[in-house]
Amino acid sequence: MNGSKTNAIIIFHALSGSSHVYRNNSEIGGWWDEMVGVGKPFDPSKYFIICANILGSCYGSTGPSSNNPQTRKLYRLNFPIITIHDIVKSIKLLIDYLGVKKILTITGGSMGGMQVLDWVVSYPEMTQSVIPIATAAYATTLNIALNEVQRQAIYSDPFWNKGNYYTGYPPNKGLRLAREIGHITYLSEDSMKEKFGRRLYHNLEYIFQFEEEFEVESYLQYKGDSFIKRFDANSYLYITKTIDYFDLREGNLTKTFSHLKNVKFLVISFTSDWLYPTSQSKEIVQALKSNNIDTSFVEIDTNYGHDSFLVECDDLRVIVSNFLNNLHI
Amino acid sequence: MNGSKTNAIIIFHALSGSSHVYRNNSEIGGWWDEMVGVGKPFDPSKYFIICANILGSCYGSTGPSSNNPQTRKLYRLNFPIITIHDIVKSIKLLIDYLGVKKILTITGGSMGGMQVLDWVVSYPEMTQSVIPIATAAYATTLNIALNEVQRQAIYSDPFWNKGNYYTGYPPNKGLRLAREIGHITYLSEDSMKEKFGRRLYHNLEYIFQFEEEFEVESYLQYKGDSFIKRFDANSYLYITKTIDYFDLREGNLTKTFSHLKNVKFLVISFTSDWLYPTSQSKEIVQALKSNNIDTSFVEIDTNYGHDSFLVECDDLRVIVSNFLNNLHI
Repeated sequence: MNGSKTNAIIIFHALSGSSHVYRNNSEIGGWWDEMVGVGKPFDPSKYFIICANILGSCYGSTGPSSNNPQTRKLYRLNFPIITIHDIVKSIKLLIDYLGVKKILTITGGSMGGMQVLDWVVSYPEMTQSVIPIATAAYATTLNIALNEVQRQAIYSDPFWNKGNYYTGYPPNKGLRLAREIGHITYLSEDSMKEKFGRRLYHNLEYIFQFEEEFEVESYLQYKGDSFIKRFDANSYLYITKTIDYFDLREGNLTKTFSHLKNVKFLVISFTSDWLYPTSQSKEIVQALKSNNIDTSFVEIDTNYGHDSFLVECDDLRVIVSNFLNNLHI
Repeated sequence: MNGSKTNAIIIFHALSGSSHVYRNNSEIGGWWDEMVGVGKPFDPSKYFIICANILGSCYGSTGPSSNNPQTRKLYRLNFPIITIHDIVKSIKLLIDYLGVKKILTITGGSMGGMQVLDWVVSYPEMTQSVIPIATAAYATTLNIALNEVQRQAIYSDPFWNKGNYYTGYPPNKGLRLAREIGHITYLSEDSMKEKFGRRLYHNLEYIFQFEEEFEVESYLQYKGDSFIKRFDANSYLYITKTIDYFDLREGNLTKTFSHLKNVKFLVISFTSDWLYPTSQSKEIVQALKSNNIDTSFVEIDTNYGHDSFLVECDDLRVIVSNFLNNLHI
C-alpha cells in the first residue's frame, strides 16, 4: 500500500473461489494467475491488492462449516441465509480496518461481478472505478433454475442429511453432480465441441455400457471429483442462494445507478457466455449511460463461454491494463 | 389406410413420448394434439398415422422393465444398450407387417427427428418424404454432457440400486432431478423469463429459506413430480444413451445422404432452441443440398426453445400442411 493509500484494488471471487487469487510464493496456482501478478494487469508491485474469502464460503471466512461461538457447535443450516450485500458489507469492514478511504478499482467476474455492482451502489464515494466482468445486475430465471437443480443434487444425497454431515461421510455424490451441472454452464457449445467432440474415452470402438463412453463424460467426472476434495456442500448451497437473491433493479436499474456520477466503469462480457450473456451486461451499460456515467463496454469475442474470464485472458489483459493505466493514483 | 396403402405417415416420438400421439377418444391428451387430429396437419381422416412406442421405453414396447422370456425375469440392466437404428429397425418390422411399401411422410421432433433421419438413410426406397424437426444428424458434446448429468442424477439415487428396484421403492429423487435438468434444456432463457421472471412462490417478500423461493423452482419440482408418476428410470437411462450414440456422419454427412435423391425433405428448426440449435439443422440442409436433394428449410422464429415443436405450433401447422398437400398420395 502506498503512503496515501490510493493504490488499493479489491478483487471479488466467484462461487468456488477463495482469497488465493494468485500464486505468489505458493505451490498452488491462484484462481486468477492470468490477471494478477508481477507484469500482469493487477500487479502487486504497483497496487495493493485485496482479495478476501467471501462470507458463507469454506476457505476461511465464516460459513455453515464454522463454529458458532454462541452455541459452540458448527452452524450447519443454522447459518443464516446471506445475500451478496451481506458479503459486500463484510468486505467493507475489512477495508475500513485497513484505513483505505478510496479504492482505485474493484473487479470480479460472474458472482464476483455482482459483488462489484453491489459495492459501487453501496459505497460510491469510496470507489474511483469498477470493472464488472461476465456478470449481471440480477439473477435471471435461468440462473435461478440452474442453481436450484444443483442444490437439488445436494439435497438428494442421503449423506447430506439436512446439512448435518460434518462428523460423518459428506454428500460427495450430490456435490459432485452439482459441480458437473455447473461446469456445463461455464462452457460453451463450441468450446466443448473443440475440446472433446465425440471422442471416445476407452477405445476406438463403442463399449456400449453405462460407464463413461465419451471423453466429455470422464472430463465432467474428473471436474466433479476434484471439486469435492476442496469444497463444502453446505457452502455451495448458501453461495448459490446469494446469486438467486441478487437483484439491483428494484424496478429500475437506471435509478439504482443514479448516484454513481463520479465512478468510472469498464463493463466486460464474452460472446459465448450463455450463463451471463452479453444482453445482461448491456442492461447494465444502458442504465449507466442513461445516467451519463463514464462507461466503457467491451464484448470480447471468445469461444470459452462463461469461463472466459478465467481462461481466455489475452484481450482481457490488454483491455484491463489500458483502463488501469488511465486511472489517477 | 387407403386401398393402395399410399397414405401412411410415421410419427416418431421423443425421449419421454409414447404411441399416444393424439387424444382421439381418450380422456388423456396426446403429446402432439397440436399437430395430429381431424382438421390438423396430420389428419387421421386423410392419412393412416403410425406412432409406435420406441424400443427401450416403458409404454408398451420392450425395455428394461419388461420380462425377459428367456430368463423369466425382468431385464433391468441386462437389457442391451440400444441405438436409434435399433429403434428404427423395430418400427420397420411393424411397417412390413402392415404391408406398407412406401411411406408418404415420416416426421418427429428432437430424438424423434434422429429416428426420421436414420429411417430415411436406411430405407430411402420406402420413403416419399421426411420432416425432421428440431433435431440433428449427431449428438453434440453438449447433448452428451447434458444427458450424462441426467443419468448421474439417477445413478446417484441409492434406490436405483444398479437398476434393481422394480420390487421396491423406485429412484424417484434421481429421476425427478434428471427431468428437472432436462426440462431446463427444453426451454429458452426468454421463455423462462416471460413465464416466471423472478416472481416469488410463497409471498410478496423473500422467505430466506432453502425451500422454493421463486416460482420457477416450484415449477421445476412440479414438472419432476409429474414425470416420476409416468416414467421408468432405467428407460430414461437407455433412451438418453441412444441419443449419445447417434452420429450419421461417419466422417461425411454429404456422403451419408448421397443415395436419397428421390426423397423430399422439409427441415425445421426453432430460433430459441439451444439444445438442437439451428446450426445443427443447417448442417443437415447443407449435406442434402450438396446432393441436389429436394429440400425445404424453415427456421421458425419463436421464444419457446427446444419445446417449440410441442407448444408453438401455429407456424408449424401451416408449414407442414402446405408440405403435405403438395405430396402425391
